[in-house]
Amino acid sequence: MGGDFAPAYEVQGAIECLRQCENRLHIILVGDEPKIRLELQKHSAEGLNFSVVHAPDVIDMHDSPVVAIKTKPNSSLVKGITMHKEGLAEAFVSPGNTGAVTAASTLILGRIPGVSRPSVAAIFPSEKGPVLVVDAGAVSDCKPHFLFEFGVMGSLYSEYVFKKKNPRVGLLNIGEEESKGNELAKDAYKFISERKGKLNFVGNIEGRDILKGNVDVVMCDGFVGNVLLKFAESVPGYLKFQFKKFAAQGFVNKLMIGMLRGSLKEIFRDMDYTEFGGIPLLGVNGVTIIGHGSSPPKAIKNMIFRAEEVVNQKINQQIQESLKEQQ
Amino acid sequence: MGGDFAPAYEVQGAIECLRQCENRLHIILVGDEPKIRLELQKHSAEGLNFSVVHAPDVIDMHDSPVVAIKTKPNSSLVKGITMHKEGLAEAFVSPGNTGAVTAASTLILGRIPGVSRPSVAAIFPSEKGPVLVVDAGAVSDCKPHFLFEFGVMGSLYSEYVFKKKNPRVGLLNIGEEESKGNELAKDAYKFISERKGKLNFVGNIEGRDILKGNVDVVMCDGFVGNVLLKFAESVPGYLKFQFKKFAAQGFVNKLMIGMLRGSLKEIFRDMDYTEFGGIPLLGVNGVTIIGHGSSPPKAIKNMIFRAEEVVNQKINQQIQESLKEQQ
Repeated sequence: MGGDFAPAYEVQGAIECLRQCENRLHIILVGDEPKIRLELQKHSAEGLNFSVVHAPDVIDMHDSPVVAIKTKPNSSLVKGITMHKEGLAEAFVSPGNTGAVTAASTLILGRIPGVSRPSVAAIFPSEKGPVLVVDAGAVSDCKPHFLFEFGVMGSLYSEYVFKKKNPRVGLLNIGEEESKGNELAKDAYKFISERKGKLNFVGNIEGRDILKGNVDVVMCDGFVGNVLLKFAESVPGYLKFQFKKFAAQGFVNKLMIGMLRGSLKEIFRDMDYTEFGGIPLLGVNGVTIIGHGSSPPKAIKNMIFRAEEVVNQKINQQIQESLKEQQ
Repeated sequence: MGGDFAPAYEVQGAIECLRQCENRLHIILVGDEPKIRLELQKHSAEGLNFSVVHAPDVIDMHDSPVVAIKTKPNSSLVKGITMHKEGLAEAFVSPGNTGAVTAASTLILGRIPGVSRPSVAAIFPSEKGPVLVVDAGAVSDCKPHFLFEFGVMGSLYSEYVFKKKNPRVGLLNIGEEESKGNELAKDAYKFISERKGKLNFVGNIEGRDILKGNVDVVMCDGFVGNVLLKFAESVPGYLKFQFKKFAAQGFVNKLMIGMLRGSLKEIFRDMDYTEFGGIPLLGVNGVTIIGHGSSPPKAIKNMIFRAEEVVNQKINQQIQESLKEQQ
């Protein structure tokens, strides 16, 4: 119920998911049951592998996540994560507020031993495949060891989900030299360098290295990562605006853009977040996938497939082992 | 001499500039004279309004800016800024290392009274014209009042150079609510809100608001701003890569992209930093324009025109008056 268009897009996305995977998954729709049933009626959902769990409480943007979690046990967020905690679901997927989903997941599921702070791992496109940016919004003020742990978790995710061998992990900074950056970056460089054995740490990288794919995993605090993520997600909209402006300048222009429409869509596909669907919350004792508030059905569908992938790869065990050894 | 291709591109850019402005400006080329003369020979520079000042010392990336400034008075950087300080030039333009140019400008020219830290103001394209991001690399670790001053300086620059009326100034954050963000953002929000009279402060903005042009000026620390700037500058290269990949998929694709080449260039022009040339260092007692190390001649040319514009607008007087009143 946390999405901007809930539960319409959520229900539609779930139905599309079940159709595509031919009922391989079972989807539990958690939220306001009458509203969900109303949406289900709009689609021919018979024979699909889902169930509905009623959760009428509403958490809104103005609620403090921590308070809301305690006072609204029957919200879709708290109910859904609690069901996951109790083993009634193998993963939890939500297009709700990142802060609220992160807080609820952390409080209810707990952290993997060795993890100081769970982190949202944003997926950026690049010339060499997907690049993970950790953290992209869970922790605004970080300590050096948080960044190191983000790097370890991101590296394992990159290895197991994106099948990258020995992922290259870089520290986001404003210059390549060790002496560059703010206090956090300088301290983190030192901290991570001393623990190189645990990571394929390639040193400092800059903003321009991400789309080039010069690394597979980017470590940064959640403030920088979130600003960057939202900026990157706004690029396709800006390009669309520029193409429209160009098309409006004359008939020939319009024709050319018209001819190219399909191709442009293909060219920009990697920049479209709905393809990735959602981003994993790494470090919690469970599987939580967070999506955009405005996620269309396609994004919802892909979020669910992403959750399946993470469950199958058993990344949490890898994270626990990796961070246990270093303690 | 600080550019990656110095002095070849610098000399060529200066010549192109003088030709375009028909000798309206006088350009002093400061650097290794024999090398500069060699470049000049490659062009028909006769009759153009320039002079050459010999400055053979070389500052390299590994030098500490502060030490270099003291020990290398005959570097192009120190010599050039000193000439500006002494009134022998009305502005200083360099594609050298941002940290070094900022440090040298601050030390030699001094700060405008009321300015705590000079700031580089990056120019981003948007759906509604240029957006300034201050700071984009001068100050990594900021205090709330730095951000406020960046906003005041950026606002004046936007008003006088970009002719925007009552520029909208936003605080870069990871959510709209006052309670959002890291410690700096929260404290800065409070500090700036209390001084609203000096700024058209529209509150928190997010990464996605920049390209939309929802504000004219974005306040942030130089770490976030620099990461964002370098990321944004890498977008055209990434798109080029995607277009090439698409073209390589077949003859029809190649033909389509070929047909569209000129148009694509036009569409992406606003994202091309060489159009803006360089970014101003706001808050120093003088006019310094900083460019990319890899600036091509066109960027060098546009940097010089930008410097002329800033000199003509007398922005420093405006900054001084605006920040004096608030003391």
